[in-house]
Amino acid sequence: MSGENDAAALAQRHRERMQRKKAVVDAGIARATVERGVVVVTTGNGKGKSSSGFGMVARALGHGLRAGVVQFIKGSFATGEEAFFRRFADEVSYHVMGEGFTWETQDRERDIRAASAAWDIAAAMLADADFDLVLLDELNIALKYQYVELDKVLAALAARPPRQHVVITGRAAPQALIDAADTVTEMAVVKHAYQAGIKAQKGIEL
Amino acid sequence: MSGENDAAALAQRHRERMQRKKAVVDAGIARATVERGVVVVTTGNGKGKSSSGFGMVARALGHGLRAGVVQFIKGSFATGEEAFFRRFADEVSYHVMGEGFTWETQDRERDIRAASAAWDIAAAMLADADFDLVLLDELNIALKYQYVELDKVLAALAARPPRQHVVITGRAAPQALIDAADTVTEMAVVKHAYQAGIKAQKGIEL
Repeated sequence: MSGENDAAALAQRHRERMQRKKAVVDAGIARATVERGVVVVTTGNGKGKSSSGFGMVARALGHGLRAGVVQFIKGSFATGEEAFFRRFADEVSYHVMGEGFTWETQDRERDIRAASAAWDIAAAMLADADFDLVLLDELNIALKYQYVELDKVLAALAARPPRQHVVITGRAAPQALIDAADTVTEMAVVKHAYQAGIKAQKGIEL
Repeated sequence: MSGENDAAALAQRHRERMQRKKAVVDAGIARATVERGVVVVTTGNGKGKSSSGFGMVARALGHGLRAGVVQFIKGSFATGEEAFFRRFADEVSYHVMGEGFTWETQDRERDIRAASAAWDIAAAMLADADFDLVLLDELNIALKYQYVELDKVLAALAARPPRQHVVITGRAAPQALIDAADTVTEMAVVKHAYQAGIKAQKGIEL
């Protein structure tokens, strides 16, 4: 029957395509042999940068690793992550910078003091091999406003324990940080609920 | 002293810039008045798509919401999220499709059966107002291979409880899904550790 022949041919084509794909994937895995801590940067204007960082923390905890988190910008909608990850005090060290968004404080000196204090905590994590993964959420914003010195960040990343992973989020990542990173994702807005008049709501990043 | 004048002028310029920014942000918040569940799609070839979905689940749990998760592709490195979120059996319903990557099974019929079973569970979540947020991880891959029918997905999204949020991840999101979504982020590779020969490692998404 022609229908059966068609189905068999389709299954065979699928198998051949997937065999070729598997060969490509397996060769890539065979080539990737270096094991060391990586620096992951997520930047761009799209949504999902901080969420991806917190998802990586969740995955790390699932593997029994220990994580440190410093949030460089405290927003009224960032409280969900904090409430959640503070449940795991044994596995996650959590620090939130003690001020609001920069356009809320409107005070550069106060912002710099808060960001410097947050950076000191981050620097201590980056010097401590007990942290398998360190998330520096919205650090790029602090770098953009020059609240934290880029050179200090690059030096701390270079000197960190060799197996430690670091995830840095925030739009406008500086080029020198991109150059220093191992994996960089640019998150671009295709569309945004906010543009259509939909309100920010509890428990969802629009 | 000129140094003090400079510092005062810098502080003043900063304050003015932040006041203008706050006015723009506040006006945007005032315009955004609609409260309803949103559909968030993360797509593109960059890293962080699934992580951002799992970060949104963590945030939702932090706000006391209830989440459902269906993973449409089971990979050997997706086990961290599963181990982590299965700790919250009261707050998260978790289902992982029972097969490996499509290029591992190389069997289209088996893949379709597994994807259909996973979709049935997803469809039940999308019909249940007890789920505040539903994450359909890598659904786009199942749509791309036509293991799950796009029309069924669009119909289930349209008919879901009005306050329910849905997050759908995976590269190659179909245009009709993008059209139906409220927020869409395209994640692009800037660089990737894998390309530099760095091995995938426990607890980190390269």
